[in-house]
Amino acid sequence: MDIFFAPASLAVYGISSKNHNVARIIVENCRRWGYRGQVFGVNPTTQERSVNGVRVVRSAAELPVVPELAVLLVPARYVAEAMEDCARAGIRRLAIQTGGFNESDQEGKAHARRIIQIARDNALRFVGPNSLALADTGSGLCLPFVPSYPVRQGGFSLVTQSGGLGIFLWNLLNSEQVGMAKFSSIGNKLDLDECDFLEYLGSDPATTVIGLYLESVNRGRQLLALAEQMDKPVIVYKANVTQAGGRAAMSHTASLSNDDAVLDAAFERAGIIRIRHLHDFITTAKAFNLPPMRGKRIMVMTPAGGLGVAMADLCEQHAFSFADPGPDFYAELAGISNAGVIDLNNPLDMGDLYQVDRYSSIFSHVLASDSVDGAVFASQQPHMPPGGTDVFTAMFNTDLTLGIAGAIRSSGKPLALALYGDDTRLRAIKQQTTVPVFNGPEEAVGALYRQMRFYGHKTAGVFVPDPDLRGLQPESAQMWLHEHCGVVGEEALQLLGDYGIPILPATIATTPEEAVRVAVRLGFPVVLKVVSPQVVHKTEVNGVLINVADEDGVVNGFADIREHLLLHRPEARFDGVRVTAMAPSGHDLFIGGLQDPSFGPIVMFGDGGILVELYQDVERVLCPTSLEEVRRKIDRLKVAKIFAGIRGRQPFDPAPFAQSILTLSHVLVNHPEIREIDVNPIRLTASGGVYALDARLYIADQLQSFQHEEQ
Amino acid sequence: MDIFFAPASLAVYGISSKNHNVARIIVENCRRWGYRGQVFGVNPTTQERSVNGVRVVRSAAELPVVPELAVLLVPARYVAEAMEDCARAGIRRLAIQTGGFNESDQEGKAHARRIIQIARDNALRFVGPNSLALADTGSGLCLPFVPSYPVRQGGFSLVTQSGGLGIFLWNLLNSEQVGMAKFSSIGNKLDLDECDFLEYLGSDPATTVIGLYLESVNRGRQLLALAEQMDKPVIVYKANVTQAGGRAAMSHTASLSNDDAVLDAAFERAGIIRIRHLHDFITTAKAFNLPPMRGKRIMVMTPAGGLGVAMADLCEQHAFSFADPGPDFYAELAGISNAGVIDLNNPLDMGDLYQVDRYSSIFSHVLASDSVDGAVFASQQPHMPPGGTDVFTAMFNTDLTLGIAGAIRSSGKPLALALYGDDTRLRAIKQQTTVPVFNGPEEAVGALYRQMRFYGHKTAGVFVPDPDLRGLQPESAQMWLHEHCGVVGEEALQLLGDYGIPILPATIATTPEEAVRVAVRLGFPVVLKVVSPQVVHKTEVNGVLINVADEDGVVNGFADIREHLLLHRPEARFDGVRVTAMAPSGHDLFIGGLQDPSFGPIVMFGDGGILVELYQDVERVLCPTSLEEVRRKIDRLKVAKIFAGIRGRQPFDPAPFAQSILTLSHVLVNHPEIREIDVNPIRLTASGGVYALDARLYIADQLQSFQHEEQ
Repeated sequence: MDIFFAPASLAVYGISSKNHNVARIIVENCRRWGYRGQVFGVNPTTQERSVNGVRVVRSAAELPVVPELAVLLVPARYVAEAMEDCARAGIRRLAIQTGGFNESDQEGKAHARRIIQIARDNALRFVGPNSLALADTGSGLCLPFVPSYPVRQGGFSLVTQSGGLGIFLWNLLNSEQVGMAKFSSIGNKLDLDECDFLEYLGSDPATTVIGLYLESVNRGRQLLALAEQMDKPVIVYKANVTQAGGRAAMSHTASLSNDDAVLDAAFERAGIIRIRHLHDFITTAKAFNLPPMRGKRIMVMTPAGGLGVAMADLCEQHAFSFADPGPDFYAELAGISNAGVIDLNNPLDMGDLYQVDRYSSIFSHVLASDSVDGAVFASQQPHMPPGGTDVFTAMFNTDLTLGIAGAIRSSGKPLALALYGDDTRLRAIKQQTTVPVFNGPEEAVGALYRQMRFYGHKTAGVFVPDPDLRGLQPESAQMWLHEHCGVVGEEALQLLGDYGIPILPATIATTPEEAVRVAVRLGFPVVLKVVSPQVVHKTEVNGVLINVADEDGVVNGFADIREHLLLHRPEARFDGVRVTAMAPSGHDLFIGGLQDPSFGPIVMFGDGGILVELYQDVERVLCPTSLEEVRRKIDRLKVAKIFAGIRGRQPFDPAPFAQSILTLSHVLVNHPEIREIDVNPIRLTASGGVYALDARLYIADQLQSFQHEEQ
Repeated sequence: MDIFFAPASLAVYGISSKNHNVARIIVENCRRWGYRGQVFGVNPTTQERSVNGVRVVRSAAELPVVPELAVLLVPARYVAEAMEDCARAGIRRLAIQTGGFNESDQEGKAHARRIIQIARDNALRFVGPNSLALADTGSGLCLPFVPSYPVRQGGFSLVTQSGGLGIFLWNLLNSEQVGMAKFSSIGNKLDLDECDFLEYLGSDPATTVIGLYLESVNRGRQLLALAEQMDKPVIVYKANVTQAGGRAAMSHTASLSNDDAVLDAAFERAGIIRIRHLHDFITTAKAFNLPPMRGKRIMVMTPAGGLGVAMADLCEQHAFSFADPGPDFYAELAGISNAGVIDLNNPLDMGDLYQVDRYSSIFSHVLASDSVDGAVFASQQPHMPPGGTDVFTAMFNTDLTLGIAGAIRSSGKPLALALYGDDTRLRAIKQQTTVPVFNGPEEAVGALYRQMRFYGHKTAGVFVPDPDLRGLQPESAQMWLHEHCGVVGEEALQLLGDYGIPILPATIATTPEEAVRVAVRLGFPVVLKVVSPQVVHKTEVNGVLINVADEDGVVNGFADIREHLLLHRPEARFDGVRVTAMAPSGHDLFIGGLQDPSFGPIVMFGDGGILVELYQDVERVLCPTSLEEVRRKIDRLKVAKIFAGIRGRQPFDPAPFAQSILTLSHVLVNHPEIREIDVNPIRLTASGGVYALDARLYIADQLQSFQHEEQ
């Protein structure tokens, strides 16, 4: 992969001296960026032997050396040809920038299939197509065909599905204290994708922070594993979130699981930093130029009281806690306070502390305090009138970044500096200082928060799922699954039973007499439910009778249910009535699951019945999960208040619920053919029991599921 | 008020030639700003006769003229004295900048009471104290004592409770295309407050957009009325939101009502634009330099495909709809498309439209289309290498603002321009163009959305509440209220009954026999509830028995309830059992209300029982409200899905619920002594009925409530 970013020699396909030739810009960019490798042009259609001082040949085979990388910017219909030319000449690495492949019409899709085939047949690896390809501030390689000055060098590497957006971003870097290491525009990622580049950048010494702009996630699990294992922060902006989903869903739990929420759960697991504002690529990268914030205790400082209040709001919203540097600290400050009219506290209003020469020592004291994990300071650097001898001119003309840098260095703790003011002065300061300068308190507090969370996650270590339950009657489960396919209703409870999730004894009766016998055996009261292949939501056909107290009740109930079915669904087949024991009372919850196309098996859970649909009080975990993760996310549910016992109501121990979630996660892992599952309700009883009362499954036929596994 | 901002003469108290004298800066600022009025200094303690060319006297009485405005920057303990000096000299308007009053210690609070008294006794009006006072780019008055260059002149006026934050903001204006009209730092607002300045700015010809930075809202209703009646946009940043509330709450509905949510409801009613990011003062003001966006249909355009996707997400999140300029438009574009590899659609990826000279006509076509209400265009203006003849150099070096300005002018519709790029180039463009330039798509889409919502609200017209129901048995209600005080439980249903909210017949029985007689009269089944002054939450003492079927049931039930009370609350008094008819089945909702210290009576409503606590699915309206507003907000509730009939369940007509909310809003308006009310549950029945089943009231004694009214 190194060679992709620093090839000793480069062949540019499609170059010519024609006025609007774009390939030529690549050569110019490489010159401007100081690329020191050999550059050749390849163009079968031109008579030219040289363009802009670059030797041009009709075929790469004519070249004195085998270029280590070829960049293709020829019309889509000629790309295959050019690839074959590369293959014949022994070129193994390609950057295909041309558009008009699978992102466009049928012909383009055909082109796409063709170039994949050619790459396989000839062992070619390529980035693109439909991409701006690669750039590297270290090697000076700059393949994007937009004229560009060198980008400031640094540790930020960007992998983007939109080349244009990537270029837009890199033009911001020069003025924003963030330097770039490597740039990868992966376009349609038909061969090399974000995971390939993420893996490479993880071990790239020049890269310290990695940004990903993604419109789709191909290999979700791979992405997570890579991010989780590397110690570099991975920042992701996922676009195309509102268009997300689109796949028809069988059950309402599926309809709940929008890709975006799954993405949140997945990124949280891996410690990936998700941003929802493009500019936060830069602000977050800036925050990682500060030492780690190892705890939540923050000190807020500003000479503008109002900013103190606004920042206090921000900090509380980000779940920071307010540090207390102790009485000695405040006592010393009081000593240098001017009019003494401002209470000294946290947030610290420095509007009355006019001795700006003392600020550095204040910053040092704050960061040195054992009860402070980090700090934020907001001030301004306006264009002040000259010659002022007053305290304000002194304060706002003083560049505090040196003192701040010292305090940061000596403490090893972060101080996020937010500066308002004249943009030319701010630019100058940003150029001079090593201290990240944020454009306002929102940027500073938000970026510091994301940094703190990242280090917190890394400290917690790599996620380890709890061992799976293979061996717990999977044979019977496997058998059951072979006998079923498509949408399965309540009988799916059988499968859960095989996995040890408690269910109630039930038998299907085809006659009233049989129903009575079953009821007597189970003991009264019982529940009667309609059985019909056409009915998935039994309540919708009024097909459920609970608390049936005696034999007459069963006989009448049987008749009623048959009647209701006929009434609501004349076409539906009546297969009898399921007679079940009454469940003990308790609180109804739900557990659902599905196979996410990007992230594989996901389990979601929350409050049950229709509440799940109403309030979507749902948490999600990737499978397999751990009891610890499940418990942590159960505690986030609003319904968790019920478990604690709300308003003097009886509390419920959620342990059996958590255990069932863990079990279901293994069911989904063991049986990928289960595409969607919905256990609703699953009842948590006061006595510490749990019962799955109803379930729905969607089982794909094996073939499909294997295909699914492959992708 | 005009004179406050443009006094013909100004007296500066506290000026001296001492090195660190801050009052002197005021004189310097006024000079720099071109203030043309007379300026005098007043300082009883100095021998100087002149400071910086300003005549200084010991008392304003010595001055040849009566200054129209005095600015006081003397220590807090001398302010009263200075005010009296002003009064004696006939000065009627003061700007008090000194800090150390009610925001600080007991002594400061005494100072505060004193200056209020002096002002009343001498008919003085003042801004402050603890403020930076006033500035006016028109008159050149600049009282803030921080050395300052003139701020760019324009239509944006700021009223701020934090002078420092205000100054920080105005230093951003010069580089951000927003000019300032008037600046008001109101500090502790002991006399003139935000409402006084808002009212004035509403009719100030120089002011087109008004920004308020508030940490507290004194006269909430007044603020709303002013904002609602003026046609200028009012932008509010409310700080101190996380500290909000703090008042001990009687019922759980009260605990739900945090000031912040009330603020949202209040601002929505008045069309006040609430921002949560300080920089949005500027971005929102910019958006009002564009013509009104009169509908939701937006066209999204960019040469960077990824930005198109990101902006599409933003637009959908802001509930914009995507405009369709029609096939002819796209057909024409296809004609000038380069490689023809990009589908032309909305969002419009212009990455393949290289003829930048055509962009202006594209913008004009888009805005001219009847199916387009507005547009957003995102591009970049990087620092391009010189001499490029390629399409990109042409595209990114071309300043499109002229063409955009033309399209905007000819169509009278907004196009929000978002530009990335080199900050020095962007600054230059912002200085040249009349077109607002936003720093990225998030700013552009967000600001355009706020602008659209504002004009939509103004088009809808001023809110008119539905007439109140005074006359509907208020005498009986009034009588009932005189008989009750403090916390009242279920018997409060009586009051609701008087107002026509349906309740169930109920009688308190002190003996089992009496309970049976009542039950027989009401008809079985009945409900039995404990009656005890110590019990507010009856379920917590297991004090409710429903569905009691016969006389034996009543007798046993009476005994059980007495037992349960003894068990749970041995100390509680047993006053018998309330026997009530069984309510028909239905869905339980809740309605609550309280007297908000800033905005007066508020009614909140949502899903009932404990769900309100769990999910806080609550909407709020200010009282009095209108059926239309209530219905609109009911539709926003998640529980509204229930009304529609979810998963084949029976639907409920919410009309009687809405009517009850309207009624309760009148109850709170008619009886300010009702501080908090909680009707929970109120049951909506399938037959279209509604019954208030339980209620709790907190009634303040009349005296308190009158005081409450006065403040």
